[in-house]
Amino acid sequence: MADALARLQDALGERVDTHAASLEEARADRSGFRSDGPPLAVVHAESVADVQTVLRIAHETRTPVVTRGAGTGLAGAANAGPGEIALSVRRMTRILEISPNDLLAVVEPGILNDDLGAALAPHGLWWAPDPASRAISTVGGNIATGAGGLLCAKYGVVRDAVLGLDVVLADGRLIRTGHRSVKGVTGYDLTSLLIGSEGTLGVVVGATLKLRRLVPGDVCTLSAFFPSVRAAARASAAVTAAGAQPAIMELLDAAAVAAISALLRVAEAAPGSAQLTIQTDGPGARAEAEAIARVLRDAGGEVAMTDDADEGERLLAFRRAMHPAMAALGTSLIEDVSVPRSRLPEMFDEIARVEREHGVVVPTVAHAGDGNLHPNFVFDGDEVPAHVWAAADDLFRSALRLGGTLTGEHGVGLLKRRWLADELGDDQWRLQRDIARVFDPRGILNPGKVFAP
Amino acid sequence: MADALARLQDALGERVDTHAASLEEARADRSGFRSDGPPLAVVHAESVADVQTVLRIAHETRTPVVTRGAGTGLAGAANAGPGEIALSVRRMTRILEISPNDLLAVVEPGILNDDLGAALAPHGLWWAPDPASRAISTVGGNIATGAGGLLCAKYGVVRDAVLGLDVVLADGRLIRTGHRSVKGVTGYDLTSLLIGSEGTLGVVVGATLKLRRLVPGDVCTLSAFFPSVRAAARASAAVTAAGAQPAIMELLDAAAVAAISALLRVAEAAPGSAQLTIQTDGPGARAEAEAIARVLRDAGGEVAMTDDADEGERLLAFRRAMHPAMAALGTSLIEDVSVPRSRLPEMFDEIARVEREHGVVVPTVAHAGDGNLHPNFVFDGDEVPAHVWAAADDLFRSALRLGGTLTGEHGVGLLKRRWLADELGDDQWRLQRDIARVFDPRGILNPGKVFAP
Ligand SMILES: Cc1cc2nc3c(=O)[nH]c(=O)nc-3n(C[C@H](O)[C@H](O)[C@H](O)COP(=O)(O)OP(=O)(O)OC[C@H]3O[C@@H](n4cnc5c(N)ncnc54)[C@H](O)[C@@H]3O)c2cc1C
Ligand SMILES: Cc1cc2nc3c(=O)[nH]c(=O)nc-3n(C[C@H](O)[C@H](O)[C@H](O)COP(=O)(O)OP(=O)(O)OC[C@H]3O[C@@H](n4cnc5c(N)ncnc54)[C@H](O)[C@@H]3O)c2cc1C
Repeated sequence: MADALARLQDALGERVDTHAASLEEARADRSGFRSDGPPLAVVHAESVADVQTVLRIAHETRTPVVTRGAGTGLAGAANAGPGEIALSVRRMTRILEISPNDLLAVVEPGILNDDLGAALAPHGLWWAPDPASRAISTVGGNIATGAGGLLCAKYGVVRDAVLGLDVVLADGRLIRTGHRSVKGVTGYDLTSLLIGSEGTLGVVVGATLKLRRLVPGDVCTLSAFFPSVRAAARASAAVTAAGAQPAIMELLDAAAVAAISALLRVAEAAPGSAQLTIQTDGPGARAEAEAIARVLRDAGGEVAMTDDADEGERLLAFRRAMHPAMAALGTSLIEDVSVPRSRLPEMFDEIARVEREHGVVVPTVAHAGDGNLHPNFVFDGDEVPAHVWAAADDLFRSALRLGGTLTGEHGVGLLKRRWLADELGDDQWRLQRDIARVFDPRGILNPGKVFAP
Repeated sequence: MADALARLQDALGERVDTHAASLEEARADRSGFRSDGPPLAVVHAESVADVQTVLRIAHETRTPVVTRGAGTGLAGAANAGPGEIALSVRRMTRILEISPNDLLAVVEPGILNDDLGAALAPHGLWWAPDPASRAISTVGGNIATGAGGLLCAKYGVVRDAVLGLDVVLADGRLIRTGHRSVKGVTGYDLTSLLIGSEGTLGVVVGATLKLRRLVPGDVCTLSAFFPSVRAAARASAAVTAAGAQPAIMELLDAAAVAAISALLRVAEAAPGSAQLTIQTDGPGARAEAEAIARVLRDAGGEVAMTDDADEGERLLAFRRAMHPAMAALGTSLIEDVSVPRSRLPEMFDEIARVEREHGVVVPTVAHAGDGNLHPNFVFDGDEVPAHVWAAADDLFRSALRLGGTLTGEHGVGLLKRRWLADELGDDQWRLQRDIARVFDPRGILNPGKVFAP
């Protein structure tokens, strides 16, 4: 291992960073988890060749490599510990190509979502993935986690927005998956396999992204309060059942509404109130918003609506305050279950049951348009207490029973690895682990993540 | 092998079919290729358990299994030969669930696209994949080939329309991949890996399909003739560059126009004319069609346009006659290259060059909206002549040089396996083959297909 560090320093000089503060930072992402101790080094790769050099040395010396983008992940998947190399691609931020005619861009992995968005806008283009962390997360991290966001129901997830990848394999070789063409079925779809693989199959060093044209027309924003979370969930189901396709449809339960109201010092709605924030876009935005307003009122909602951009941002700001509102309450274990849309009301019933039975409070925000919920298990201190884990375990099993999944967009990482086999079944779990071994026979890529040891 | 047949008959009785005509049929798909001789038997599976029984026996006796849907493939991938079991899932046609609220359906693999469409329509739903073979191809075959079709540019390919799969593995075990929820990133995306795997990774015995609501509003159809294929290709590029999103945009080159005119006995357009057929749909269909008509006229096209459904079908019938028109000329090697949209005019130049240099005629139809071309190498007799292979080889390399791919939607099968490593590179080719070995350690699933021996 000393050998690995010396060889890295020899090959990459200053790009090998062993400052205590850097090592400390690489121990954690935003999950609240932290590794057992500092890694060997943080390598700040600046080129594909740098990444290849790191992997070659790591492979030869059998040293584990934890790839990092911006470290904003919520599953502990980017946390690097003793004896591991933290390989940061955050400095690889170049945009190599923007093709308005082919609606694609070729980028390096370290670019932040918002920086990419700013570069695309003058061409009338955008890349749809829109995690709430877009100001601070990298495109490579989005790809490695299979990120979602607020716009998924209408505009898809990362998987729908990537044409091909450049990937450095465990031993330093470079492969190029996918196509520049819209269609292509030559061999297996390794691009999709790599999306969401959380640094366990290879290092993404380049991506050919599928772009969209900026949506013309207005944006209308609606905010609606309901007497209970069940009423709000039923209203959101009624919106989709009516055939409307909002760009954004976010649901806050009563505990979330209360926490955000306290943070923003706004008068709280009636106790127990839940809230929906909805945006429509495109040429029919206004007509669609009016139709949605009717559905919400019929479902018992108190509705505010605007087609003014600033006023719309103000309505949406309530939803965006969820994360800081949770931080103000304590430490959060942010969960990420996803269920078929129609089961959303039942899932909220399950959350209420878990709160009752385990004596916990779980403020929840949901991407209601696609059935993805983020229950926040709030607690004091740095360590997740045992009773919170027990409550989370109960909640995961409820989601699976409702035909759902453990993680809609944050990934497995450390946080959910012990439930992975429950969802996949033992046969599929083993199959997936054996696929990882094909990519990484020496087990040096993010070991211990995703697959529980 | 005799042992395998006896065990199959013992376990499955009448479902094991050894009639000469059935064996003969299983030797070929629609590629024009035929295996060296009849397979051991055709097994008509009627349930998941039947498929598991076949795979268990095949695995124990190391007998190759070639899965077949309707046998309409164009790559030779479903062709079964001596010593192989042809496993047909064509009788597994049940629809197990249609959920309008969750926009999903659960089906068996043997159902035909059109039968599924007919069952979904009364619910106001449809499954977008729309291969030109939809009246005769199975949903399972669509999934196993990663099929495309006429509507891909706007409504996506099979990969965008499947949430999860039930798959029988090489040794008879059953796994369930994916989710019923819209989002999910639990572990690797095996659903996408299996889509397009051409029967080499497992047998699809069930699929959870992602549905769309039927598109409200009119359908407008345009037909435009251009003095040359280059002009037509440039016009189609101008349509996308203008931001229009037609549901269908099909391009016929001059040789295709001539052959179809002859078949349909319609007066031929001026010699050398190429044609575009375009359809718009949705609430803005008419405005979009008018905008497109202007773009086409500016690009030198002679345009006809209608919002009448029957008249629209009549215009589209010209395009739909491509396959029979080719059959009338002789035998065809139907190719399937795909290039970035903007390179379409250059790809047509390459086709003209190949025609000149190799002395062949290659009538071509293209899904112009997504850059996917089907050059038809027409010849006499049953065997592809050497000079046709040489011309096809030249054409493949042109597509790769233009940033394209060997196969946009038909798959690799037998036809393109010798070029697969050219596109993937040796490292990725080996990686893919090693992944196949994880699923199928004994190499019994469709051996010799995709990966050249
Ligand atoms: C306030 C807040 C809001 C959030 N909202 C959302 C949301 O709405 N939707 C959502 O999906 N997520 C959300 N997240 C989670 C997080 O931002 C995303 O998972 C994001 O995609 C991570 O990007 P990153 O660059 O920070 O990756 P990191 O945290 O650095 O890494 C995440 C994983 O990806 C791997 N990785 C990173 N880069 C590469 C690469 N180039 N090659 C191979 N592997 C790589 C790492 O090894 C690790 O396994 C949120 C986080 C915060 C803090
Ligand atoms: C006139 C005509 C037009 C066509 N137009 C198009 C088009 O527009 N777009 C397009 O993409 N294709 C087109 N095709 C090709 C063909 O119809 C498609 O590839 C179709 O998806 C094949 O379906 P099938 O049921 O006939 O599969 P088969 O030909 O029986 O099998 C194809 C492959 O899938 C495998 N397979 C089949 N079922 C399963 C299963 N349940 N599990 C695992 N593996 C399985 C087979 O082993 C084989 O590798 C066309 C063909 C014709 C004849």
